[in-house]
Amino acid sequence: MAAIPKPGWHPDVRDAFKLKKETYLAMSSEKEDIHCGLNGLYSTARRSGTVPLDWKTGSSCLPQELFQARPRKSCGKPRTCWENYVSELAWGHLEVPPEQLEEHKDEKALISLCSRRRAHTLSVLFILTCALVYVTLLEETPQDTAYNTKRGIVASILVFLCFGVTQAKDGPFTRPHPAYWRFWLCVSVAYELFLIFILFQTVHDGRQFMKYIDPRLGVPLPERDYGGNCLIYDPGNTTDPFHNLWDKMDGFVPAHFLGWYIKTLVIRDWWMCMIISVMFEFLEYSLEHQLPNFSECWWDHWIMDVLVCNGLGIYCGMKTLGWLSMKPYQWQGLWNIPTYKGKIKRIAFQFTPYSWVKFEWKPASNLRRWLAVLGIIFMFLLAELNTFYLKFVLWMPPEHYLVLLRLVFFVNVGGVAMREIYDFMDDPKFHKKLGQQAWLVSTITVTEFLIVVKYDPHTLMLPIPFSVMQCWFLGILLILIWTLWRFFIRDITLRYKETRRRQQEVPVDWDRQLGNGGPAAAASGRSKLNGSSETLRQRKS
Amino acid sequence: MAAIPKPGWHPDVRDAFKLKKETYLAMSSEKEDIHCGLNGLYSTARRSGTVPLDWKTGSSCLPQELFQARPRKSCGKPRTCWENYVSELAWGHLEVPPEQLEEHKDEKALISLCSRRRAHTLSVLFILTCALVYVTLLEETPQDTAYNTKRGIVASILVFLCFGVTQAKDGPFTRPHPAYWRFWLCVSVAYELFLIFILFQTVHDGRQFMKYIDPRLGVPLPERDYGGNCLIYDPGNTTDPFHNLWDKMDGFVPAHFLGWYIKTLVIRDWWMCMIISVMFEFLEYSLEHQLPNFSECWWDHWIMDVLVCNGLGIYCGMKTLGWLSMKPYQWQGLWNIPTYKGKIKRIAFQFTPYSWVKFEWKPASNLRRWLAVLGIIFMFLLAELNTFYLKFVLWMPPEHYLVLLRLVFFVNVGGVAMREIYDFMDDPKFHKKLGQQAWLVSTITVTEFLIVVKYDPHTLMLPIPFSVMQCWFLGILLILIWTLWRFFIRDITLRYKETRRRQQEVPVDWDRQLGNGGPAAAASGRSKLNGSSETLRQRKS
Repeated sequence: MAAIPKPGWHPDVRDAFKLKKETYLAMSSEKEDIHCGLNGLYSTARRSGTVPLDWKTGSSCLPQELFQARPRKSCGKPRTCWENYVSELAWGHLEVPPEQLEEHKDEKALISLCSRRRAHTLSVLFILTCALVYVTLLEETPQDTAYNTKRGIVASILVFLCFGVTQAKDGPFTRPHPAYWRFWLCVSVAYELFLIFILFQTVHDGRQFMKYIDPRLGVPLPERDYGGNCLIYDPGNTTDPFHNLWDKMDGFVPAHFLGWYIKTLVIRDWWMCMIISVMFEFLEYSLEHQLPNFSECWWDHWIMDVLVCNGLGIYCGMKTLGWLSMKPYQWQGLWNIPTYKGKIKRIAFQFTPYSWVKFEWKPASNLRRWLAVLGIIFMFLLAELNTFYLKFVLWMPPEHYLVLLRLVFFVNVGGVAMREIYDFMDDPKFHKKLGQQAWLVSTITVTEFLIVVKYDPHTLMLPIPFSVMQCWFLGILLILIWTLWRFFIRDITLRYKETRRRQQEVPVDWDRQLGNGGPAAAASGRSKLNGSSETLRQRKS
Repeated sequence: MAAIPKPGWHPDVRDAFKLKKETYLAMSSEKEDIHCGLNGLYSTARRSGTVPLDWKTGSSCLPQELFQARPRKSCGKPRTCWENYVSELAWGHLEVPPEQLEEHKDEKALISLCSRRRAHTLSVLFILTCALVYVTLLEETPQDTAYNTKRGIVASILVFLCFGVTQAKDGPFTRPHPAYWRFWLCVSVAYELFLIFILFQTVHDGRQFMKYIDPRLGVPLPERDYGGNCLIYDPGNTTDPFHNLWDKMDGFVPAHFLGWYIKTLVIRDWWMCMIISVMFEFLEYSLEHQLPNFSECWWDHWIMDVLVCNGLGIYCGMKTLGWLSMKPYQWQGLWNIPTYKGKIKRIAFQFTPYSWVKFEWKPASNLRRWLAVLGIIFMFLLAELNTFYLKFVLWMPPEHYLVLLRLVFFVNVGGVAMREIYDFMDDPKFHKKLGQQAWLVSTITVTEFLIVVKYDPHTLMLPIPFSVMQCWFLGILLILIWTLWRFFIRDITLRYKETRRRQQEVPVDWDRQLGNGGPAAAASGRSKLNGSSETLRQRKS
C-alpha cells in the first residue's frame, strides 16, 4: 500500500475513530460483522462531522459490494492477515488511512481473532498429564511426610498456574503476551491465599511457618542502631567531614529511584506522585517511634529522598509517559516487516505497551472521584508501609529474597490494578465490575495490614507523640473542610448566585412579553393553538 | 405491542436470525452499535434470501433515522428496558417480530448489558474485609496448631470462592445465575488441587490424610460378600421364591434411574447414552476380578440396570430434552409480567435453562469428530469407574457423604464441560479454546485415575481373564477396522470412482472443443487476449 496524503481530519477525529472494543470484536468471523465494524466506524466519523469531502459513498451506509466481500481464504500467517484485510477494507471503502486505524485498534480483540487458534489449552493439558504420570507413577515416592506435603503444595500451585495461565480471564494489558498477565493474576491469587493462611495462625506458628519456605527464617531480627549524627559537614571527623553523606549513599538510592520511576508509570500523574512521595516522608516522621528504621536525618528525608531519588524518578517517569503517549503504536505483525532490522525493532516493541491510556484523575471534578482518589492514595501508602511492617512482624531480614520478590510482584500487578481502578472510576458505564486484579490487590493490601495488626498489636499501639497527633488532626481537618467547601457549600453558593442572576433577568423577559401583547394574550393564544391541534387530532382519528 | 401475524419465513430463518454473541454484544452501549447489531441481523436475513417481500427499506442498509435513535434515558428497570428497546427497534425497522428475536438472543450478553451495574465486586470485598477483621482481630486465636492449620486452609478456600464467584470467567450457562456456575468452577479448581495434593503423598499418608476431613475415615473397609445365588425363582426358599429379586430392589435403583436421567441431559444423544450404558456393563463384567462389587447376576446387569433403570432414565431424559428444545424460551424480565401467577411461573422458569443447544454429535461425519466422540466416551467411562475405584483405594465407605458430594459435583460440572466440549468440537472457528470447565473436568478425571493407579497398582495389575482379553481385543479391532474403512478406504474408493466417472465424461468435452476450432486455437486465442490486455495496461500506465 503506497503512502497516501492524510485527509484533513478534524482534531477530534482521533477520538471519533476510537473503535469500541465490541465493534472490533464484532469484526470477528462473519462478513456482516466486518460490515458492522466498518459501519460503526463510519457512523462515528459521520456524526463527528469530520468526514473529508471526497468521501466515496454519499449514503449513510457502506457500498453494496462490501456485503459480497469475503476474507482471503489462503493467507498463510494467521496473525496478520485479518489486520491487513480489515485495514484494506477501511481504506478502500472509508478512506481511513491504515495509520489511523492502526492507532486505535484493540490488540486484545485482534489476538483473539488471529492467534487464538494457537491457544494451547490441549497441549498444556497433555504436557501436564505427562508430567503427573512421570512424577507420581514412575518416580519412587519419598517416605518423608513433611517433604511430600511441601511437594504436594508446590505441585498444586503449579497445576493452578497451568490452569490459570491458559484459562483465566484476560486483563487490560496485552504486551508482551496476555498469558504473562494471566500468570501474575494467578500468582496474586496464590499469594493472597498464602496470606490468609498466615493470618489464621498464632503469632508463633506463623513466624515458624516461614521456616518451611527458608530454614534460615523464623529467628528474631537483631536490633540495629539507626539515626545518629545528622551533620552534613562533621568537623569532628578530620579525615572526611562529609562521611555522614557518603554513608547514606548505599544501594537504596538507585532502589528508590527505580521504585519511583515505576510508580510514576503506574500512577501516570505528576501531582499524585508528588503527593504520595511527600506523604510517605510525613508518615516516616510520624511512625519513627514504632519502626526505628524510619528515623532519618532531615536532609535524608527531604533532599535525598523527596528531591533527588523520588523527584528524579518521577521526572524520568513523566518523560517516559510523554514518549509512550506520543509514540506511534505499531501493530504490524512480525511477518509483515521485510527487513531484519525492522523485525528486531518489532520484537523489542513487543515489550512496550500496546496502547497507552493517559490517566486524568481529575480529583476535583466531583465528590465520587475525589473520594476515589483519596482512597487510592490511602491504599497506596498502606501498601508501602506494609513492605516495612510485614518484614518487621514476620522476622524477615530486609535483604531477604522474599522481600524483593514481593516488590517484583507488586510492580507487575500494581500497573494492571491501577489501570483497572482508573477504568472502573472513569468509565463506569462500560466497566461495571471492578477489575479482578484491582480486587485482588486491594484484598492483598488489606490482608497484609491485618497480619501486621494481628502479629504485633503492641508496636502499633505505642502512644503517638502529641505533636504528630496535632499535625495529622490538622491535615485531616483541612481535607474535610476543603471537601465540604468544594462539593457542598460551593455548589449551594453557585446555585444561589444562579437563582439571583435569573431573578434579575426575569423583568427584562417580562417587559418583552408585555410588548408582545401581555402574558394573558400569549397564554390564550397557546391554549387556542392547543385547542385547534386537539380538534385536528380528533378529526384525524 | 399488539400480536401481529408472523410473516412467511423460510424454514432456515430461525438459524439465519441466530444472533452471534458479538453482534449482540455490539448492541451494548452506543447508538451505532445498535445499528450494527440490527444491520448484522438484517444482512443475515438478506443473504439467506428469506426476507418477506414487504420489507420496509429497499436499500442494503437501515433507515437513516436509526442513526438518530437514542435509548430511552429514564427507564426504571435496568434489566428489561434494553430488551424492549432493541426488540422494538428490530420490529419497527426490520419487521422481526419480538418472538423471533427473543428466541435467539444471548442472555449472557443481556445480563452483562442490563444487570452488570449490580455486580457485587465492591460489596463482596467489603464484607470479606469485615469478616476477616472480625475473625482474626476480635476473636481470640486458638492455640491448637492443627486446628489453626485446618481453619487457615478452609479460610483460604472460602476467600478463593469469594474471588472466583465475583470475578471468574463466565461459562456457557446462565440460569439460574452465572455466579452459580462460577461457584462450581471454583469448586472444581479446589477439588483438583486437593487431588494433586493427595497424589503426591505416600499411600499410607494419603489414606490417613482423609482423617482430617472426617475422623471416621482412614480405616480399611470391611470385606463384603457379593454375588451368590442368581436364580430369579428360587425353589429352595419356600416362603418367598423371588427373594433374590427383592434383595436387589434397594436404594440403588432410583439412584441409577436418576443418574442416567441426568447423564442423558448432559450427553443429549440417545445413541451415545445407550452405548455408554451397555459399555459400562461390559466393563463391570471385565473388572469383577478386581472389584468384587462389580459382580452381579446376569439379569441384574442386563434387565435391571440396562433396561429398567438406565433405559427408563434415558427415556425420560430424552422426553425432557424434547420438551426443552421445543419449549418457548421466555426472556421477559420479572418486572414486565403483570400477574402474580405469571411472576411465579417466571421465577420457576429461571431454573430451567435459558436456551437449549441440541447436540448433534455426528461421529461418522469425519475422522476428527469420530476420534473426539471415542475420546468423550472413554473419558466418561473412566470417570464412572473412578467413582468405584477411588472409594476403594481411599478406603471410603460407599454410603459416605463425600462420595455423594463428588456425584453432586460431577452433575453440576459435567453438563457445563460437555457443552464446552461440544462447542469446541462443533464450532472450532468460534470456540478456539477448550472451555475452562472441560479442561478442569478432564484434568480431574485423569488425576483421579492416577491416584487409583498409584494407591493400588496391585489390584489394577491382577491378571485379566483370557476370555475377557479376547473380547476386548476383538472389540478394539472392530473399531479400528471400521475407522480404517470409513475414513480411509471408503474415501479412496469414492475418489477412484469419481475419477473414472470423469474420465468417461472427458471425451464428450473433447469433441465439443474440437468442434469449436480445437484446443490449439483456443489457447492461441487466449494468449492473444492476454497480449492485448497487456498492451492496453501498458498504454494506460
